[in-house]
Amino acid sequence: MQTLADPLEHARLTAAHSEAIVCGSDRLDYQTLWSRCGRLAGYLAGLGLQRGDRVAIVAANCHRYLEAYLTVSAAGYIIVPLNTRSALAELEYAVVDSQARVLLTDREPSSLDALLEHVIRLPDGYEQAIAEAEPARLGVDLHEDDLAGIFYTGGTTGKAKGVMLTHRNLMANTWTALSWGRPTHDDRFLIMAPLFHLAGTCSVLATVWVTGTQVIPSSSHPSDVLDIIEREAVTSTLAVPTSLAAMTDEQLERPRDVSSLRLLSHGASPVATEILRRAVKAFPDAELLHLYGTTETSPIATSLPHEELLLDTPAARSCGYPALGVQVRVLDFDGVVMAPGEVGEVLIRGANVTKGYWNKPDETAAALRDGWYHTGDLGYLDDESRLYLVDRLKDMVVTGGENVYTVEVENVLYSHPKVAEAAVFGVPDVKWGESLYAVVVPRDEVSPEELIEFCRDRIAGFKIPKQIEVTSEPLPKSGAGKILKRQLREPFWSEHDTRIGN
Amino acid sequence: MQTLADPLEHARLTAAHSEAIVCGSDRLDYQTLWSRCGRLAGYLAGLGLQRGDRVAIVAANCHRYLEAYLTVSAAGYIIVPLNTRSALAELEYAVVDSQARVLLTDREPSSLDALLEHVIRLPDGYEQAIAEAEPARLGVDLHEDDLAGIFYTGGTTGKAKGVMLTHRNLMANTWTALSWGRPTHDDRFLIMAPLFHLAGTCSVLATVWVTGTQVIPSSSHPSDVLDIIEREAVTSTLAVPTSLAAMTDEQLERPRDVSSLRLLSHGASPVATEILRRAVKAFPDAELLHLYGTTETSPIATSLPHEELLLDTPAARSCGYPALGVQVRVLDFDGVVMAPGEVGEVLIRGANVTKGYWNKPDETAAALRDGWYHTGDLGYLDDESRLYLVDRLKDMVVTGGENVYTVEVENVLYSHPKVAEAAVFGVPDVKWGESLYAVVVPRDEVSPEELIEFCRDRIAGFKIPKQIEVTSEPLPKSGAGKILKRQLREPFWSEHDTRIGN
Repeated sequence: MQTLADPLEHARLTAAHSEAIVCGSDRLDYQTLWSRCGRLAGYLAGLGLQRGDRVAIVAANCHRYLEAYLTVSAAGYIIVPLNTRSALAELEYAVVDSQARVLLTDREPSSLDALLEHVIRLPDGYEQAIAEAEPARLGVDLHEDDLAGIFYTGGTTGKAKGVMLTHRNLMANTWTALSWGRPTHDDRFLIMAPLFHLAGTCSVLATVWVTGTQVIPSSSHPSDVLDIIEREAVTSTLAVPTSLAAMTDEQLERPRDVSSLRLLSHGASPVATEILRRAVKAFPDAELLHLYGTTETSPIATSLPHEELLLDTPAARSCGYPALGVQVRVLDFDGVVMAPGEVGEVLIRGANVTKGYWNKPDETAAALRDGWYHTGDLGYLDDESRLYLVDRLKDMVVTGGENVYTVEVENVLYSHPKVAEAAVFGVPDVKWGESLYAVVVPRDEVSPEELIEFCRDRIAGFKIPKQIEVTSEPLPKSGAGKILKRQLREPFWSEHDTRIGN
Repeated sequence: MQTLADPLEHARLTAAHSEAIVCGSDRLDYQTLWSRCGRLAGYLAGLGLQRGDRVAIVAANCHRYLEAYLTVSAAGYIIVPLNTRSALAELEYAVVDSQARVLLTDREPSSLDALLEHVIRLPDGYEQAIAEAEPARLGVDLHEDDLAGIFYTGGTTGKAKGVMLTHRNLMANTWTALSWGRPTHDDRFLIMAPLFHLAGTCSVLATVWVTGTQVIPSSSHPSDVLDIIEREAVTSTLAVPTSLAAMTDEQLERPRDVSSLRLLSHGASPVATEILRRAVKAFPDAELLHLYGTTETSPIATSLPHEELLLDTPAARSCGYPALGVQVRVLDFDGVVMAPGEVGEVLIRGANVTKGYWNKPDETAAALRDGWYHTGDLGYLDDESRLYLVDRLKDMVVTGGENVYTVEVENVLYSHPKVAEAAVFGVPDVKWGESLYAVVVPRDEVSPEELIEFCRDRIAGFKIPKQIEVTSEPLPKSGAGKILKRQLREPFWSEHDTRIGN
């Protein structure tokens, strides 16, 4: 009954002349935003798009990206936001896999364009398109179980999986955002994370619904971020840990007036307690809120409010309580519910949980059972149902907020003719939370630089190992011949604060 | 996907030892509340109740009433809360109409009991029942479109109608309550309205969900209410206007420390601006929040936040903006959408809107068209979608928060052998918002007192006219012979502040 069309319609009706978006020198009120979105919908309809057709977007954060996010699904199509850091081959894969008909992009023409029927270039082509278009109504005959978006995320098999999220899923997360963020008309939310991530759009619909303002910084440089917090009296934001650390450093070194900031939420990656302590010092008026979730959970699954009051308690190592309407369970591999304190796989159920993976029935069946999403994260609950994460089942590394499946990186290394064995895993990294580390046993002499160069054309930069160790020692293996990555990984982590925030 | 079982389950898991309910000298934490509710569910199951069976309740506010409200629907049955002010004949009608199998009541045995298979008497019988019962799990295989409750409200045909509300409906209102009340774990909500009204249960699920505390005063006497606000550091409440006026007077005359009160919401009846001004004086730390809704809308449809800042503006006469996820429209009788400022019938659509009236397909079809509930209220929207009510289409009077359909009262008067013509309508009343006024043309000499006595056995006290005017003048009629009640009513209202806050 509730769809992505509702928040904008509500805002336009109740606060037409309130500031909706601040982006560079552009300031849009809700009437203008609504009008622009209606014309974008009209333009897309004019291209002959049918209900359920896919519209991909690859672009930097800007108000036009927000407009597309608010329009495409509300008009009955399906948005496919693509990672701007992906290699061209990865973008091509996602466009072909999703059978997108339209691409919105701020990039120069490339071989990608040939895969689409229509390419709309931001900003000029986009402005021209909506200037001439007849407006179309949003939200007509939408159903809450209609697909709203396909969000590509790393795949364990080495190919990206398209997470299908419905209107119901994203509206469930919107209510979650309303319950933890408690935004009001007076709030000014700073969008720090990229809009192609759910961390970037996590609060968009909630902010629109309460007719608050969204502020988009001109860059993610901490100096720009701090300047705009001061200048625009930003009240709340969501940062990935690397940004949190950077903005904290900047504020401690060159303080701005950040007294307007009441809510500083963070998530999507491990974070060191020391960074949180410094953040409390840098932003003393802000509540620190720790969020945990996955793309498959739209994204928020748990939240730890007022983390700043908990830093000296065991609860500080938790990622918090289940969000309202979200159930969290920890099971062992026989499906037995674990007692508090006992580690097992973390499962999540609720209206926020994905319908499955686009065109991937096997992966869907593996991840979703009886409505429970199997996260692949290992963790435990305490007596008050706070969740603690301790490891990952899936060989996945979260580096700077990006998920990397190590098998994908290993596949690329193995495709190099000189590589005999390769193992990729995450090691602690103050800046990125984790960074990628590879151990390679060569067939023939090969340098780390040569391997890194080899990766560059094939996968996104964040997936390329930061360090590659070339060794003549064979890698440790199980009786069945499986490489024992945990054994390789352990020495890097044993001395480390193992808190995994994500 | 979300049902009435979710909030309690969440609270028990995340805040087992937090205070859930304060009622007289009883203090229950969430573990205890959850355990008692589980045993109540087990007891009901032990009676042989089947999914969807009706369980009626007629009792004064107490923690056991709250337990029943949190249990009956969550266990898969349907709760039927009955008005404690109803006459016995009215209670009997509702029990028979709903085919309730069980009654929970704090009343002495009466002829009502014979209509039910099981009667559980509060407090002793209830305590004995749950002491001995095996607990049952709540929320098993519930669906959001299952019926959760049947809420009786006056009927235009003179018989009460059972408004059917589903889990989806009541959870939609729960999200609404979360968005306007913004409750947190630290909130202490005072339940002022009767729990058989949706005004009484409006915030129950939201408060449980955020693991706040519900406080039930020992009586609705303003002195008790103020004492408990001070003693229990109450942070928010919802009052009907008569209670709002009474607690305001009490606080201005005998001030308590009410600085804990941050949210004072009111609704369900017209309210004079003067009362609001005095309330601001009496409770200077509280936000004044005006709510409007109906039983059919679960109940909240619109809200006007920070009304205390608007009292000198035209917006103060409004009952506010559509709740999030709720659509409000004003139509003329040809179904044309009215422009801002133009009066028409108020229609409401959203996940909060009733499925219809129990066993009354004709009334359901008349009230619900294309998902829109036709409220029978006349009103208009302003440029910012704030709703203003100006009159009622249905001949309904709201007196002290109770809806009275005048036709029901007229039917009783007409059944008196000495009454030739009768017209009942509402007149302004400082205490009750409106009070009932009857004009009667007798066949034979009859006194007002005799007529009031006649009403007493047949309808609830609040439905009996406060004043009855006996006149020999024939009542004014339309060409078709219909009594022109508006003409009779007008002189009473012409001098009056006609704000209808409802």
